Amino acid sequence: MNHNTNTRARLLISCLDQPGIVSAVSTFLHQYKANIVQSDQYSTDPSGGMFFMRIEFDLFEDGYEFSLIRTAFTDVAKSFNMDWRMELASRRKKMAIFVSKEDHCLFELLWKWRAKEIDVEIPLVISNHPNLKEQVEAYGLTFIHIPVTKSTKKEAEQKAVELLHEHNIDFIVLARYMQILSPDFVGTFPKRIINIHHSFLPAFIGANPYAKAFERGVKLIGATAHYVTNDLDEGPIIEQDILRVNHRYTTEQLKVAGRNVERIALARAVTWHINDQIIVHGNKTVVF
Amino acid sequence: MNHNTNTRARLLISCLDQPGIVSAVSTFLHQYKANIVQSDQYSTDPSGGMFFMRIEFDLFEDGYEFSLIRTAFTDVAKSFNMDWRMELASRRKKMAIFVSKEDHCLFELLWKWRAKEIDVEIPLVISNHPNLKEQVEAYGLTFIHIPVTKSTKKEAEQKAVELLHEHNIDFIVLARYMQILSPDFVGTFPKRIINIHHSFLPAFIGANPYAKAFERGVKLIGATAHYVTNDLDEGPIIEQDILRVNHRYTTEQLKVAGRNVERIALARAVTWHINDQIIVHGNKTVVF
Amino acid sequence: MNHNTNTRARLLISCLDQPGIVSAVSTFLHQYKANIVQSDQYSTDPSGGMFFMRIEFDLFEDGYEFSLIRTAFTDVAKSFNMDWRMELASRRKKMAIFVSKEDHCLFELLWKWRAKEIDVEIPLVISNHPNLKEQVEAYGLTFIHIPVTKSTKKEAEQKAVELLHEHNIDFIVLARYMQILSPDFVGTFPKRIINIHHSFLPAFIGANPYAKAFERGVKLIGATAHYVTNDLDEGPIIEQDILRVNHRYTTEQLKVAGRNVERIALARAVTWHINDQIIVHGNKTVVF
Amino acid sequence: MNHNTNTRARLLISCLDQPGIVSAVSTFLHQYKANIVQSDQYSTDPSGGMFFMRIEFDLFEDGYEFSLIRTAFTDVAKSFNMDWRMELASRRKKMAIFVSKEDHCLFELLWKWRAKEIDVEIPLVISNHPNLKEQVEAYGLTFIHIPVTKSTKKEAEQKAVELLHEHNIDFIVLARYMQILSPDFVGTFPKRIINIHHSFLPAFIGANPYAKAFERGVKLIGATAHYVTNDLDEGPIIEQDILRVNHRYTTEQLKVAGRNVERIALARAVTWHINDQIIVHGNKTVVF
Repeated sequence: MNHNTNTRARLLISCLDQPGIVSAVSTFLHQYKANIVQSDQYSTDPSGGMFFMRIEFDLFEDGYEFSLIRTAFTDVAKSFNMDWRMELASRRKKMAIFVSKEDHCLFELLWKWRAKEIDVEIPLVISNHPNLKEQVEAYGLTFIHIPVTKSTKKEAEQKAVELLHEHNIDFIVLARYMQILSPDFVGTFPKRIINIHHSFLPAFIGANPYAKAFERGVKLIGATAHYVTNDLDEGPIIEQDILRVNHRYTTEQLKVAGRNVERIALARAVTWHINDQIIVHGNKTVVF
Repeated sequence: MNHNTNTRARLLISCLDQPGIVSAVSTFLHQYKANIVQSDQYSTDPSGGMFFMRIEFDLFEDGYEFSLIRTAFTDVAKSFNMDWRMELASRRKKMAIFVSKEDHCLFELLWKWRAKEIDVEIPLVISNHPNLKEQVEAYGLTFIHIPVTKSTKKEAEQKAVELLHEHNIDFIVLARYMQILSPDFVGTFPKRIINIHHSFLPAFIGANPYAKAFERGVKLIGATAHYVTNDLDEGPIIEQDILRVNHRYTTEQLKVAGRNVERIALARAVTWHINDQIIVHGNKTVVF
Repeated sequence: MNHNTNTRARLLISCLDQPGIVSAVSTFLHQYKANIVQSDQYSTDPSGGMFFMRIEFDLFEDGYEFSLIRTAFTDVAKSFNMDWRMELASRRKKMAIFVSKEDHCLFELLWKWRAKEIDVEIPLVISNHPNLKEQVEAYGLTFIHIPVTKSTKKEAEQKAVELLHEHNIDFIVLARYMQILSPDFVGTFPKRIINIHHSFLPAFIGANPYAKAFERGVKLIGATAHYVTNDLDEGPIIEQDILRVNHRYTTEQLKVAGRNVERIALARAVTWHINDQIIVHGNKTVVF
Repeated sequence: MNHNTNTRARLLISCLDQPGIVSAVSTFLHQYKANIVQSDQYSTDPSGGMFFMRIEFDLFEDGYEFSLIRTAFTDVAKSFNMDWRMELASRRKKMAIFVSKEDHCLFELLWKWRAKEIDVEIPLVISNHPNLKEQVEAYGLTFIHIPVTKSTKKEAEQKAVELLHEHNIDFIVLARYMQILSPDFVGTFPKRIINIHHSFLPAFIGANPYAKAFERGVKLIGATAHYVTNDLDEGPIIEQDILRVNHRYTTEQLKVAGRNVERIALARAVTWHINDQIIVHGNKTVVF
């Protein structure tokens, strides 16, 4: 019997709500000698809506390996017509970071990665500018400069996709990447691209949100981490946070203050994604 | 010499920024035996922008009354072409409250009024519904029911204006009053109507913000207290606050949670207005 | 089949962590035709610590009544040596409020009660002062004045206990009740007395926390809702919240500002208690 | 005439409250062609308490240099018996950082320094451990390893003091430096050493605050930036902030979460110190 975290796994389920799901899943795990250590569920409407569940469980190694359990679960999943995935907590996801010139979100992630607060592999940092090359390489990471102009955008994205596939990237973080990705690119990584928008969405969609916030005279500024879809700044929101400001803040000072809230909101969203805490349903997220 | 709060006064100034303003004002007050107890200022741009100032000072009674000082200040004000007002802190403003059926903002204000946290007179509570009559009268206040329909809206507003004038109302608080006021009405009380909008403006302008927030899947909900202008939900923002929510909240639960943040934001805005802490400039507020 | 909330129930469990609990409980509920609508669990340490669980489920009425299920669950509970309780969500708890002269926490609860945000019966409001009698009675509630002096404290408490028993009180809220309860009294209602302490415990234990906060020059003030034990201000913490202050606040202004955070923290704690969301373990709370 | 920030200056004043201070100071500045761009004041008690003021002003260069004005101000200061200082905003203060092994506060400061959010010189980073040498040097900074043991503590501090004097250090930041400084050392830099304590003081004074917070079951954890005095964790508080936690957090997870609030509180305190926004009075701070 072995309870160490190498043998911890996570199961995420979405399906139509119906009686007996929890019982079937927990009985299955019990039969396979797995011990449930955490469990969360959410029903949009107990009388016939959607059902979402996240279970964290510890495996017992003698004869009940992860692959065996995952294969066996297929039958349970079928009987409830589940959309599901089961992941070993110990498998480190491969995260690519896209960045432009603003470095605060990038370095928040890298600092947390070095401190092991964000437990991933980072095979690639991709930028449309060369500026941050040296600093990224100082972390022992690979920095790829892929310039983007109007005319080269298509090839630039193709080159990025090739690199991402080559390194088996699990998900992408846009850490203040100031290029709009094409539908083709977004479609290649559905629900796997996390962006940080520098406003409290849906306020101030699009460019220059701090200038717009200054203009409107808001008393709080915000940041929104969301999955990227083809509707600009309209994808499923993962996390939002805000900061109090006042009439004294210039647009420039709003930008500086906003950096703190951007990096905090993004780091939380990335952490939740890594820990398989997020289920996307329609244009919303369930964060367990 | 008497330092009690009966003799405290406040001076608010807006003018073009230029050298010597602070010196002129503070020297004037010193000559008139007034003692500055608090002073705040703000320049949009020290090289030729706008200058705003709020000074709180104590009067000395022997020979230097408030009316004398206020009259004498006219000369200083002229020389800098100031927009200004001087108020005795002891003069209790007359506040009218407009309400519909939702009572949480109303009772927040009434409770703080009874606790002397909000130091005003409340000559009138006006509602387009009769529901809250008994509860308001239990506070010893006058409740006026003025029904509003499409066809009677004009007369209803006229009746309200007459009552407001009759009672020398200083300002109006729309404590979840669910009627849009006409430009005529708004124009009669410029910068003197405070509304609470149940969203983090400029997100979710207009009707049903909680339903829109639910639909969008936001992770924070907000409320915005602002002065009313003729552009719906576009007036100068006084205060905003937010509350964390998650995927479990139904539209109805967002509404219930939102009440807490609405009443807090509104009460703060009203307090600042009462204490002469707000200067409106263009579509923004300076809150000292 | 009836999914209305009259038939919603809650099950709370504490026991030693061991394999098979979730499976046993969820299978039991499934057999009894109950549909789990929410489920939370927490293990202090998956390798042999404590296990806590809260399940919300809907009952099907035809032949599977609540009392039947509760009786039948005894066998499951025994096999895991559980400490447990099962409650119908529709049963309104009976809450007594104790208050002295400060009324902000009292009226926060009464307002939320009238707005049906706090869904309880309030058979009694007890006070050691007569001041709030009229206002409480205006809510249609019973106000009992039980004066307390050093020499009459014992009889005063006895009288209160009698009244509380007579009205089958489920729990007591000390809404700024400025008397220390005797061990006898506290022992009569274990884990069933909620107090609001006007500081961020464990800072500023005991009397006059705002004066102490002023003295220390803190930049945030707080409030703590906790279950009452015989160690003054040392009982299990349910909820805490804070408010930003600065050097300008006098002790009196700290008190006024603090009222807002006291009533918010207390109202949350009371809501969670009513919804059976709290399990007390040792000197801590698990809040689901 | 030159309004650029090279010629901006700041004046900080503490003295007994008395009539005419603001007038005298603002008239003085006006005579010397200085333009007040911001002004804050605070009186502990307008009838004879302490008066504190901070003025930001722009200098006009032709004939009215900073040193001239500073010298001339001596007369004004004398007449009110002021404790005062006048500083050019353009003079970059020299900050030394002390650190042990935990690097999150250090790198927060260094990242903000590189981003020019914290505008200082950092002549020295001193540590009692060698671990962070390489990473600090990657920023182009000098890292000095001064080991400290019980028997060598005195010499270690002497060595540090020599280095600090040699580099004309203005102030010291203890960025999670896990050594208690001697009264001699503290006395050498009065009101010039900023520490970050990893709790919401005065809760959890001393060692292992997160373990104590876990034990007590608090629902919020905090951090406190304060000036160092010889009473452990009792010096004047500059800034505090908190983070919501729950029963699921282990002591280790409290530590990880706490890092975020520690670095935010410390960075704010350092920023305010750099901008001459803090006046220490007794054991409290006035933060303008």
